[in-house]
Amino acid sequence: MLKRCTNNPIIKPAMVNPSFDGYHVMGTFNPGATVYNDEIILLMRTAENCEEEKGFINIPYYEFKNGTSNANILRIAENDPDLIRKDTRGFLYKGIDYLSTISHLRIARSEDGINFKVDDKPFIFPCIESESYGVEDARITKIGDTYYINYTAVSKDGYVTTLVTTKDFKTIERKGIIFPPLNKDITIFEEKVNGKYIALHRPDNHGFGLPSIWYADSPDMIHWGNHICLLRPDGSVYESQKIGGGAPPIKTEQGWLVIYHGKGDDSMYSLRLLLLDLEDPSKIIKQSKKPVLVPEEDYEKQGFFGNVVFSNGTVVKDNGEVYIYYGACDDTVCLAFSTIDDLLNMF
Amino acid sequence: MLKRCTNNPIIKPAMVNPSFDGYHVMGTFNPGATVYNDEIILLMRTAENCEEEKGFINIPYYEFKNGTSNANILRIAENDPDLIRKDTRGFLYKGIDYLSTISHLRIARSEDGINFKVDDKPFIFPCIESESYGVEDARITKIGDTYYINYTAVSKDGYVTTLVTTKDFKTIERKGIIFPPLNKDITIFEEKVNGKYIALHRPDNHGFGLPSIWYADSPDMIHWGNHICLLRPDGSVYESQKIGGGAPPIKTEQGWLVIYHGKGDDSMYSLRLLLLDLEDPSKIIKQSKKPVLVPEEDYEKQGFFGNVVFSNGTVVKDNGEVYIYYGACDDTVCLAFSTIDDLLNMF
Repeated sequence: MLKRCTNNPIIKPAMVNPSFDGYHVMGTFNPGATVYNDEIILLMRTAENCEEEKGFINIPYYEFKNGTSNANILRIAENDPDLIRKDTRGFLYKGIDYLSTISHLRIARSEDGINFKVDDKPFIFPCIESESYGVEDARITKIGDTYYINYTAVSKDGYVTTLVTTKDFKTIERKGIIFPPLNKDITIFEEKVNGKYIALHRPDNHGFGLPSIWYADSPDMIHWGNHICLLRPDGSVYESQKIGGGAPPIKTEQGWLVIYHGKGDDSMYSLRLLLLDLEDPSKIIKQSKKPVLVPEEDYEKQGFFGNVVFSNGTVVKDNGEVYIYYGACDDTVCLAFSTIDDLLNMF
Repeated sequence: MLKRCTNNPIIKPAMVNPSFDGYHVMGTFNPGATVYNDEIILLMRTAENCEEEKGFINIPYYEFKNGTSNANILRIAENDPDLIRKDTRGFLYKGIDYLSTISHLRIARSEDGINFKVDDKPFIFPCIESESYGVEDARITKIGDTYYINYTAVSKDGYVTTLVTTKDFKTIERKGIIFPPLNKDITIFEEKVNGKYIALHRPDNHGFGLPSIWYADSPDMIHWGNHICLLRPDGSVYESQKIGGGAPPIKTEQGWLVIYHGKGDDSMYSLRLLLLDLEDPSKIIKQSKKPVLVPEEDYEKQGFFGNVVFSNGTVVKDNGEVYIYYGACDDTVCLAFSTIDDLLNMF
């Protein structure tokens, strides 16, 4: 099992400034992770709603015009007959859908990987119609001096996976939608295999089997093909609903090490290991018999969405130590430690 | 409106030999279409079940071993306690799912495009696990002397789109899954635009908006990216459920002409026109105000799945005549005539 950091949760919503006057940070969680200029960088999904105001419903939304976007608040009297409450997640107002919370991606920076300072402003925020319900769950893949960031973009058309690149964590270059609806949990390997980029993805096969982890490859990281179903949920208490990839796989002498998540009974999320063939990552070498992290601590069991540990960012140190960042309960950022040797011994 | 062929339906199930002793052809419909060696070739979805036998349930299935597959029949006593009837489409027997019908792709050939002779054997049949519930609804894209055939492959993981190529309609080369679950109605343009292959696709965005037509491009027809939502259903009686692409678009002086289908109220399928920009097919120039073919004739209103006209194959003659092949009621192959000029006047 992984060893939790005693400082957990290492980042809480109170440490994050709202992105807009009148917004309120509900959760900051599920961080992508990488190293840039000797600092560890986390790119956190940060969910905001509006501050409460008596007699009114205040709803966060973004305006998109000519390629720019502006955060905004829709202020509606509680008894406005045009307001329809759909469920806890959304509203219908004058025929238009709104969400009660919207996520953006925020950077946190650290020298030791444990104590973080959060940027004042969002790094990536909803910018086009395909992101109008928010941007979520970034993965960062470093190749050369370029950081490839993929994230889930949600809109009325469904959830898709979008790719952007950065070299400085200040500006980004948009590369478009790389996996169309409904697909998330995309994790791109940090080097080419047999001349091709490799990714794991998680299409939603609603109405058929349980959502599974798929393999794909690409000549350019923009166009993806050769899709193969790699691993299906085992149906156990830990994987009775679905599974999905996590951070970019870690290259080891024995194979590509994948820390993936399962969603099981009572919607509990846990982490488990998979080892893929070095030369052909569409082949599984082995799978850990059990999860290596399940919700046990209070901060993993109680929160906005209880019983969730979800990792999409790891950092491997030169000495083989592995820092495994994870979101707890869609609320906070947590950290667990291991080493490559220890992880390989968990199979 | 399109002009129906007076011979309709031009191909009926009785004209098709079963692919296996004991199988029964229920429907032959939704043909891809092209021209090969001066013949018009249709590649028809051909659905088979088993001949009835008193006291028994006979279920068609394919065995997959070492890359080859064999058609087979599972013969189960009607009162076998291990047999569970799921709905009209399938059975569960000893924990394994079976379908009551399985589709393969069968060639029909014609010199005049109206009178067809059907091949004795299937051309493409389920061959790997990702096709275990059948192969359906082929589109044929001719580029140079190569015919690119994409079709829907169905399995317990969902429906995907698979690509194969042929140069002789005798042998095929498999190119793998080009669009992962859940995605169908892929239609690939017959020439590159701005150096890239172009496709329309129809991802299933279950739980969000209505399934829509998307744009994608590719450097090699294997890997696809730059996904853009091109057209959403208009919500009318003709498009209240979903829309999807048809045959490869027809290049005209005014733009790429697309005959697409809508699924509307009471699950009625109809055909409608779209014109895309010649230089940038991710841009819509115009859309016909109404459908150009709706189920009206008996053979379009009554059948295995009533009120369906569905086209995924057209042939354009040198004189500008357009032969629009379509499936009626998941039962038969039908034909309608038009010309490029007439189609462009329907907007």
